[in-house]
Amino acid sequence: MYEFFTAPNTCALAVHIALEEADAQYEITRVDTAANAQRSPEYLAINPKGRVPALVTPRGILTETPALLAFIAQSFPGAGLAPLDDPFAFARVQSFNSYLCSTVHVAHAHKHRGFRWADDEAALASMRRKVPQTMRECFALIEQSMFAGPWVMGDAYTICDPYLFTIVGWMEGDGVDPAQFPKLLAHRERMMARPAVARAVALAAP
Amino acid sequence: MYEFFTAPNTCALAVHIALEEADAQYEITRVDTAANAQRSPEYLAINPKGRVPALVTPRGILTETPALLAFIAQSFPGAGLAPLDDPFAFARVQSFNSYLCSTVHVAHAHKHRGFRWADDEAALASMRRKVPQTMRECFALIEQSMFAGPWVMGDAYTICDPYLFTIVGWMEGDGVDPAQFPKLLAHRERMMARPAVARAVALAAP
Repeated sequence: MYEFFTAPNTCALAVHIALEEADAQYEITRVDTAANAQRSPEYLAINPKGRVPALVTPRGILTETPALLAFIAQSFPGAGLAPLDDPFAFARVQSFNSYLCSTVHVAHAHKHRGFRWADDEAALASMRRKVPQTMRECFALIEQSMFAGPWVMGDAYTICDPYLFTIVGWMEGDGVDPAQFPKLLAHRERMMARPAVARAVALAAP
Repeated sequence: MYEFFTAPNTCALAVHIALEEADAQYEITRVDTAANAQRSPEYLAINPKGRVPALVTPRGILTETPALLAFIAQSFPGAGLAPLDDPFAFARVQSFNSYLCSTVHVAHAHKHRGFRWADDEAALASMRRKVPQTMRECFALIEQSMFAGPWVMGDAYTICDPYLFTIVGWMEGDGVDPAQFPKLLAHRERMMARPAVARAVALAAP
């Protein structure tokens, strides 16, 4: 049994979907980010970085979305969520997820969390202005160069799919026109048709 | 045989060290980032993201430092660079490396690469001003909460160590006083005493 710390509208949804796909046993604890509860002493004792997701396991606490996704894939090999016996194929999965966490999610964070990297309001406004462009460039690269179809890696559904689905869900809010990205939109529809995804989305709703 | 695309003073050093630790066979191709060669058509054909490192393998091209580090660990199990048979321990390794790529490296990038997230010079200057603070906070969290010692994960040397070593190497340049971080400084010394590290550092020098 795991305890899963999550919050609505965050990248924790990717991990939530993976838990559902793996049919893992877990309890949900919501972190009230609107009340800044991720910075409370109680939550900092769970994750000193003050972020979601966090997964409390019988052996200890794990954080960071790409690490959690690979952990779930490896812990539930029967779910077939990653090519576990092929280091090259596994590295392609990890490379995609690493790009999402270190480039795409970071670009998105400059909309509401620019205070991480600058203090004055003019700089934060400047960062916000560029988010539609940076996110559009990221989605274009994924659509044109990285997405094999019908799933991210091709015929096999992997831990890349819930992560991409989660970030594509931010597209409209970040000022990017989804009509430019037909493959990503079709992927979103394909994902919503999966029972595990529908369950996680319902459980994660605000 | 691999072809390894690298550039001095980048996170590619972490992968370079891992290749040396694994005794991998590889050729080095330097990307002249001073001449912006990472944006040349030739290099974009290797890595459309226009970044180093990239590793050309017999099966295809891999990018993203955390993915490459795990790939090397899995491809050379005899080198003992990660707890490959323990999903929880492997997830802790991956979590650490994910933090380095998505938070610490990103904080560092706001010094010289703020143009990724804003266009006006005042905003870039504002970002540069905050780098010493953000990097100091990251190093403090690692020193106090994440570093087990003598290696990142404890007694076992892993792919976390070359990555931490690489980013700790940016500390002084980012305006952080190393005297505040005795564990990280001792780790740097410990790393430099490893023959594989000394070889990679010599090969990666400008």
